[in-house]
Amino acid sequence: MKRIDVVGFGPGDDRHMTYQAREAIEKADVIIGYTTYIRMLERYFPTASFMDTPMTKEIERCRMAVSLAEEGKRVALVSSGDAGVYGMAGILLQILEKEGKDIPVEVIPGVTAANAGAAMLGAPLMHDYAVISLSDRMTPLEDIMRRVEYAAMGDFVLALYNPKSRKRTEYLGMAAERIGKYRSGRTPVGIVRHAGRPEAQMCLTTLEKLGDAFVDMFSIVIIGNSKTYVKNGRMITPRGYESKEAF
Amino acid sequence: MKRIDVVGFGPGDDRHMTYQAREAIEKADVIIGYTTYIRMLERYFPTASFMDTPMTKEIERCRMAVSLAEEGKRVALVSSGDAGVYGMAGILLQILEKEGKDIPVEVIPGVTAANAGAAMLGAPLMHDYAVISLSDRMTPLEDIMRRVEYAAMGDFVLALYNPKSRKRTEYLGMAAERIGKYRSGRTPVGIVRHAGRPEAQMCLTTLEKLGDAFVDMFSIVIIGNSKTYVKNGRMITPRGYESKEAF
Repeated sequence: MKRIDVVGFGPGDDRHMTYQAREAIEKADVIIGYTTYIRMLERYFPTASFMDTPMTKEIERCRMAVSLAEEGKRVALVSSGDAGVYGMAGILLQILEKEGKDIPVEVIPGVTAANAGAAMLGAPLMHDYAVISLSDRMTPLEDIMRRVEYAAMGDFVLALYNPKSRKRTEYLGMAAERIGKYRSGRTPVGIVRHAGRPEAQMCLTTLEKLGDAFVDMFSIVIIGNSKTYVKNGRMITPRGYESKEAF
Repeated sequence: MKRIDVVGFGPGDDRHMTYQAREAIEKADVIIGYTTYIRMLERYFPTASFMDTPMTKEIERCRMAVSLAEEGKRVALVSSGDAGVYGMAGILLQILEKEGKDIPVEVIPGVTAANAGAAMLGAPLMHDYAVISLSDRMTPLEDIMRRVEYAAMGDFVLALYNPKSRKRTEYLGMAAERIGKYRSGRTPVGIVRHAGRPEAQMCLTTLEKLGDAFVDMFSIVIIGNSKTYVKNGRMITPRGYESKEAF
């Protein structure tokens, strides 16, 4: 069946996968993804047919998906988290549109890292938040930092994707500095590595210490707003109930 | 078993529920939620034991959950979407912390409306985005509008929760006006009613026409950034691949 499902399979653990994501993967003739994600999925779908490419080969993966779909295959193009958040949904739709291909596509949403990480930390995203990727592979660094500042000025909670990679080690400290212009150095920050996976690790720190924290490309960083606090190891952003009613 | 799971069950359709959310609901002695959500869940869990309260009774629902857990019950406190995004996670943790209650709590993430809506529209959240609730039940209106403006200045895609209710009909038009100070009136806007549910409806419009669009309390509104476009009925925010490589 000529068809591409763009599937967000959640953090990587099958417990956080939706029923629709699992069904799309099970029904696919072939599942295409970034090598690391395919390794995760192989555990849960031992008999499925997988194809993978290295990390930066998004366009190649889309072309593989398109060409297999055109042969009449049902393809699942997978991203961890939500395929529509820094995932494969946009690039696939752009390619189909530019090349005038008429292939049925469904985007299947998943639990994105901000939500999986927040659940482990407590409830840091209970009020308005901004999602920002610190990767400058496709966005100029100054544009990213400008967004970080506007989010800080607007007192948004920030969820930072791709906070560091082997090559980009300075940007997180830079972002913390920009945010520090508008927010206390004692603002709580939660870092979750491998959010929602069995090997997950989390740590709580503050904005002023964020530059020194252990953060890598598998981490999501959540920076509180001016009202966020930590109590009993949980990071909480109040929504405002406490001002209306006494507990 | 004395325990509370705060469960985000996704948009409402069981296909978008995660395995962990379903398991938490199935294993619960009692499931507590807002009446409308409980009606949705009863279809999928016909033998489960439910308790519900009307919409604004969040604190009462938390107290019910705490008191049942203290009797030794396993409770699932449910929110649609993600329980950590304008859901029940924060308020429950705040109550437990203020009252010094020692009850094991797990927050189980789900697919939030921004992601469910985006998947139906195409790929509008492929670049940095801000999530803002237009409900002024717990936040002063001017604070909300200030955030809307900062998000617009930072060229974030915006995902607006609670865009309208029976009482609040003016705020969405007001937000569109504020955004229009920084972004073209022709900026694409996607509106999804009942995102991710069988009865879902979607519509594409523009920022200048948003004030006249049919939007209600079951809708999520996604406003593109300066690069978002619509082609073949899909709303796409490019991530930047097209500038690096020719398709």
